[in-house]
Amino acid sequence: MLQNFPYKIVLASKSPRRQFLIKELGLDFELRTLDVDESFPETLIREQIPLYLSEHKASEFLSDLGVDELLITADTIVWINNKVMNKPQDRAEAIAMLTELSGNKHEVFTGVCLMTKYKKVTFFDSTEVYFKQLSPTEIEYYIDKYQPYDKAGAYGAQEWIGYIAVEKIIGSYFNVMGLPVHKVYEQLSKF
Amino acid sequence: MLQNFPYKIVLASKSPRRQFLIKELGLDFELRTLDVDESFPETLIREQIPLYLSEHKASEFLSDLGVDELLITADTIVWINNKVMNKPQDRAEAIAMLTELSGNKHEVFTGVCLMTKYKKVTFFDSTEVYFKQLSPTEIEYYIDKYQPYDKAGAYGAQEWIGYIAVEKIIGSYFNVMGLPVHKVYEQLSKF
Repeated sequence: MLQNFPYKIVLASKSPRRQFLIKELGLDFELRTLDVDESFPETLIREQIPLYLSEHKASEFLSDLGVDELLITADTIVWINNKVMNKPQDRAEAIAMLTELSGNKHEVFTGVCLMTKYKKVTFFDSTEVYFKQLSPTEIEYYIDKYQPYDKAGAYGAQEWIGYIAVEKIIGSYFNVMGLPVHKVYEQLSKF
Repeated sequence: MLQNFPYKIVLASKSPRRQFLIKELGLDFELRTLDVDESFPETLIREQIPLYLSEHKASEFLSDLGVDELLITADTIVWINNKVMNKPQDRAEAIAMLTELSGNKHEVFTGVCLMTKYKKVTFFDSTEVYFKQLSPTEIEYYIDKYQPYDKAGAYGAQEWIGYIAVEKIIGSYFNVMGLPVHKVYEQLSKF
């Protein structure tokens, strides 16, 4: 599938989870990474944030993009109690984040940007995630063992905490992992 | 977590997906397998089927179970249009199954049995899964490349078809993979 896709795919993401998911779609790709500023205007809410960041990341790569290349960028955020949860700066913040997620529902938004020299398609997906009540012991065990400092909301759905804490999701599981692969496939198919 | 669990865990499942999920829970286990008859009374519906089969599998292992061992057995079925979808016998049946799943909602039920010499706990989990409309080309590509003849409903959620077809789930993703790990963890914690 997508075998005669006319572009070389370039994935601009340091996330090993996104690299895994694109591979699982059966797509060959080249990895290209830059350090990109991840700040965004404070007025943005919900999906506006990862949409803005995925486009901003894409714009940083545009000048180096070949005419036969299609760039994929993405950004994922956790949204809870009317605010965004970024990556935790330290252990105390990671504990605070997981304590807030515990026993609550949150939303995961991923924005994706597909871009060639001549065309850009941007879209997002959202998933509701329901956490069970976690004990302080479970929270500290996870943080100390898994060091989730590179993860929005201080957790990885595909790690121990995801196995024991997630009671229910509504939406795409892969979106929670960082890339709504069904929508990426659909949009690539009709790009 | 579960570090001072008083039993040695024995997993009776040939499914590599279940073995993976138990490992991800951080549990050590011994694998023990038998060929068990997977037929069930025709009057059973929905979760009754995997509950029956998980208990039936457990009963086959009981006589060999040590007093310090806890056995885990499980069974997963796909339920669609008021009937169960088993493993496909051949290519034609696999095509028919995926054609029926295409563009539809189905339910995945997993029954789990935890058993020692002296106690048995049985429970289940259910997840709704929504497939996009698949093309015949996508269906045949998947079947020929992935040979899903060991999978209920002729698909694996963690394979290519799961990445492109599943638009939404309601419930646990790991239940769809074959083991509702959050419930297994919870029940082991209070066994």
